[in-house]
Amino acid sequence: MKTIDIEKRSIGVNFQEDGKAVVRVWAPSADKLDLLIVQTGEVVSLNKREFGYWQVTTDRLNAGDKYCFLIDGKIKRPDPASLSQPDGVHESSQAVSLKEFNWTDTGWTNPPLGDYIFYELHTGVFSPEGTFSGIEEKLDYLLELGITAIEIMPVAQFPGNRNWGYDGVFPFAVQNSYGGPNGLRHLINACHNKGVAVVLDVVYNHMGPEGNYFDSFGPYFTDKYNTPWGSAINVDDAWCDGVREYFIENALMWFRDFHVDALRLDAVHAIKDLSATHILREIKENVDALMKQSSRKHHLIVELDLNDHRFIDPVKNCGYGMDAQWIDEFHHALRVAAGGDTNGYYSDFDGINHLAKAYRDAYVFDGMYSPHRKKIFGSKTGNPGWQFIVFSQNHDQVGNRMLGERSSQLFSFETQKLLAGAIIVSPFLPMFFMGEEWSEPNPFLYFVSHTDPELAEAVRKGRKEEFSDFHSAGEVPDPMAEGTFLKSKLQWGLLDKPDHERMFKYYQALISLRKNNQVLKKCNRDNLEVVADPENQLLLLERWEGEHRLFCALNFSKQRRTAVIPPS
Amino acid sequence: MKTIDIEKRSIGVNFQEDGKAVVRVWAPSADKLDLLIVQTGEVVSLNKREFGYWQVTTDRLNAGDKYCFLIDGKIKRPDPASLSQPDGVHESSQAVSLKEFNWTDTGWTNPPLGDYIFYELHTGVFSPEGTFSGIEEKLDYLLELGITAIEIMPVAQFPGNRNWGYDGVFPFAVQNSYGGPNGLRHLINACHNKGVAVVLDVVYNHMGPEGNYFDSFGPYFTDKYNTPWGSAINVDDAWCDGVREYFIENALMWFRDFHVDALRLDAVHAIKDLSATHILREIKENVDALMKQSSRKHHLIVELDLNDHRFIDPVKNCGYGMDAQWIDEFHHALRVAAGGDTNGYYSDFDGINHLAKAYRDAYVFDGMYSPHRKKIFGSKTGNPGWQFIVFSQNHDQVGNRMLGERSSQLFSFETQKLLAGAIIVSPFLPMFFMGEEWSEPNPFLYFVSHTDPELAEAVRKGRKEEFSDFHSAGEVPDPMAEGTFLKSKLQWGLLDKPDHERMFKYYQALISLRKNNQVLKKCNRDNLEVVADPENQLLLLERWEGEHRLFCALNFSKQRRTAVIPPS
Repeated sequence: MKTIDIEKRSIGVNFQEDGKAVVRVWAPSADKLDLLIVQTGEVVSLNKREFGYWQVTTDRLNAGDKYCFLIDGKIKRPDPASLSQPDGVHESSQAVSLKEFNWTDTGWTNPPLGDYIFYELHTGVFSPEGTFSGIEEKLDYLLELGITAIEIMPVAQFPGNRNWGYDGVFPFAVQNSYGGPNGLRHLINACHNKGVAVVLDVVYNHMGPEGNYFDSFGPYFTDKYNTPWGSAINVDDAWCDGVREYFIENALMWFRDFHVDALRLDAVHAIKDLSATHILREIKENVDALMKQSSRKHHLIVELDLNDHRFIDPVKNCGYGMDAQWIDEFHHALRVAAGGDTNGYYSDFDGINHLAKAYRDAYVFDGMYSPHRKKIFGSKTGNPGWQFIVFSQNHDQVGNRMLGERSSQLFSFETQKLLAGAIIVSPFLPMFFMGEEWSEPNPFLYFVSHTDPELAEAVRKGRKEEFSDFHSAGEVPDPMAEGTFLKSKLQWGLLDKPDHERMFKYYQALISLRKNNQVLKKCNRDNLEVVADPENQLLLLERWEGEHRLFCALNFSKQRRTAVIPPS
Repeated sequence: MKTIDIEKRSIGVNFQEDGKAVVRVWAPSADKLDLLIVQTGEVVSLNKREFGYWQVTTDRLNAGDKYCFLIDGKIKRPDPASLSQPDGVHESSQAVSLKEFNWTDTGWTNPPLGDYIFYELHTGVFSPEGTFSGIEEKLDYLLELGITAIEIMPVAQFPGNRNWGYDGVFPFAVQNSYGGPNGLRHLINACHNKGVAVVLDVVYNHMGPEGNYFDSFGPYFTDKYNTPWGSAINVDDAWCDGVREYFIENALMWFRDFHVDALRLDAVHAIKDLSATHILREIKENVDALMKQSSRKHHLIVELDLNDHRFIDPVKNCGYGMDAQWIDEFHHALRVAAGGDTNGYYSDFDGINHLAKAYRDAYVFDGMYSPHRKKIFGSKTGNPGWQFIVFSQNHDQVGNRMLGERSSQLFSFETQKLLAGAIIVSPFLPMFFMGEEWSEPNPFLYFVSHTDPELAEAVRKGRKEEFSDFHSAGEVPDPMAEGTFLKSKLQWGLLDKPDHERMFKYYQALISLRKNNQVLKKCNRDNLEVVADPENQLLLLERWEGEHRLFCALNFSKQRRTAVIPPS
């Protein structure tokens, strides 16, 4: 029954060579399905096909037209595979021709993951404009900094104009207020022309609560599993194939039609799939086929809270074939070593010793008992270093704090430098969070702009409960307030101020070192020795490649320390 | 934190060499835990240990004594790891010394799985006595029939005296009305002395509803997953290690202390485990360690409705290491080929063609779309034939029919013979269901003996709903009625009646053929060709081993057919 054509999108509205629109919708719950063209009021009936699909080819719908679907002759809904929601999540969709873009990035070659130096950013608060073109304006700056890839937080259409992106409800539609699908393509084209790779964060483990009209179409969700966000996405229950195709098509679209270089799949541990073929593996197999056909390279990166190397093992070794994963544990161990918080999930980490283990073993909990999780957790991994992404800050680790403080507000200037250095000297892939390179003092707060007042209140309440582990003095900033969003904006003017400029130059030097040093440029976990000296709060790291040797002494104490090199 | 000692049971009550009882209970939910010795009224406090365990060593409790636990000084509960419940599921446990049994089976060697010819039986209805000693009386008969292994439906203590066994709530306690732990050991010892292997059906995917006191002790269940039986067993959520140890200890106990040869793990697809190490794999690793230490061989067989070979792949090939699995699909295809029901889950099967696929590929749905499941289902398997167990009847396939009819009531005498033959000539392991060898006419009905009236009513109602797919004329037999149980008893007297005797001799001859024929005695899936001729309702099977060739023509039509051998 598989109908995925790697060469083109097959769900939603797609235009043929002759200009006619092929409209194809997975709606097994519908008894009747009509396309309603908004401006003309025309209604075109779709024909029922196998496996819950409805389809029609029509010359009545043109690119740019607004449209929606009429289910059973009465329920009006936007397209679940909409490419554009010019009036937000509750209104009509807009037909887009994916072919209509003048790509000029033919000279671009996506580098291997080992060469990635990630820079995570949020479109809304990164630039003053809060748009894709705002990011484009900063590309020369990012090149000056030295990073090789930007990682854009989710851009799927969400309610209102302010959201981290994880409340998206149109996984194929690019947020209108950011610049829509063509704004994103313009940015990616520009990135490629300047030699910057683009990583897009996508959410396949849940859908946002507002504008979530999926139930009108079919069983996108299953109650087999419970998740923190309610019913789980249905990837292994009855009717799951339509849902699986929906997400596989989504991954293919970003790579094929948007020239995205890598996807970062959000919280894949929350994708509950007990079928014989895990959906991640099926995504990988389809992306492999696309790469073979296009001769372009694409990477699949996952956020994973399971310490289970099966996710990143190659398909031929019974893995799901993901290329790389985030490791939060490195972050946690590093922050505790640096004297940061020790409550909540940090309570599992003892600092120096666990940081040494993270350098050595990637997974800290690799079959050990985790007091915080209250269970034995994880497996041992021998996967190469370039399969792991490390950071001392990211949107979650900053933004999930009650007051959204960056390291700039929590650690001394010197300790901030130490944190960045610890990332750069690791045998893993480094990632930075926008603004940390100049020690941005503004917070990155949690913000939303729901239009449903009940939901807005629930989010406020949920937020208060969520960080009970991180309780500290002060009021919880209101996620709904525009001021909360505005407070989270980067202050580019600070780059001219001495201390901020000094930090920028330090980051610049670190990144340059990472790219040019014979040892650091390789993510080699094998040629590595690490000695923890918790008494002196000192960590000694030795790495080598052939004749080249590198010694790092990371001093987490507040005192001057003497380190013997090489460590005995 | 792992505390499993493969050499001896470590939870519940266990006696040391010096006669003292070591009492160890996993009760993370308790603030205080006392042992109450019923006869003397003595109270012995347990001491809190790590990871939710409580422990004490005492000389106050002797083998044979009744006891229970007092949680927080007020809630009286039997022992979750009780070995004996002489007064049923709601009353006190009884201390048992596992060392006190005079085994005489030192000469016994558990055969390889490839030599198993299974005979599934229910202790309550198999013999007139409905006990383990009743089974023992029939061992000479079973030897005469030729089977090599009996598979005993679950014997964990359940409410009342009548139950299939899947409502057990004391996985370590052997049903008192069957003969308790020593009755079972006596039977196994006798089996071994006569050369019969013993397979025990155990349930690790749910617990029964009545007498289910687990919540008083700890989080044995999790609401992460929903199952048809409510909350899932907690094998991957917080506190899961105590639960995992409980089941691992259970598997080890049957092998080590009861000399069980193989376990049949019920419905393992309902054990939801997304941790890095699946609990089945951990069971396998522990059983491997036990086998190494004891030099005895034990097999792990699973009931699996996933068509996912990962469960039966060796651990070194990223599998869970189970030795074999049931394949219901062979049964379904065979029954449809024979002109049986085509509703419910049978609707996925077209008869001859799917039966041919089952002979060839083991899994019928190996990545194909299943209309009944409404999704693509399964994976392809190259696992050897001895890893699959086939049958034309079993407790579920008979007993899950509204009227519990065996093949004897649904198929002609000749077709019954054909069904048995189809099993014997397969490259898989054959299993028979008690009484089918003489074409027992009595049904195998669903029966329970709950003492909770609300539950009894719920079971009655549930039963009516369950087989809506198999709706036919007639009243639903009352699962609670003793008559329903009695009607399900085997009629041994029939063996003397001509037709029944004829069927017995036919089964005897088939089993002898299976054991002695150079081709049939090997479960070789590679040297096999099968040709389906659906028009003539004919299936031609060719198998070979070296010079030996075997041709089988299975004629599912009602007419005489001519088959060309060898098939072209």
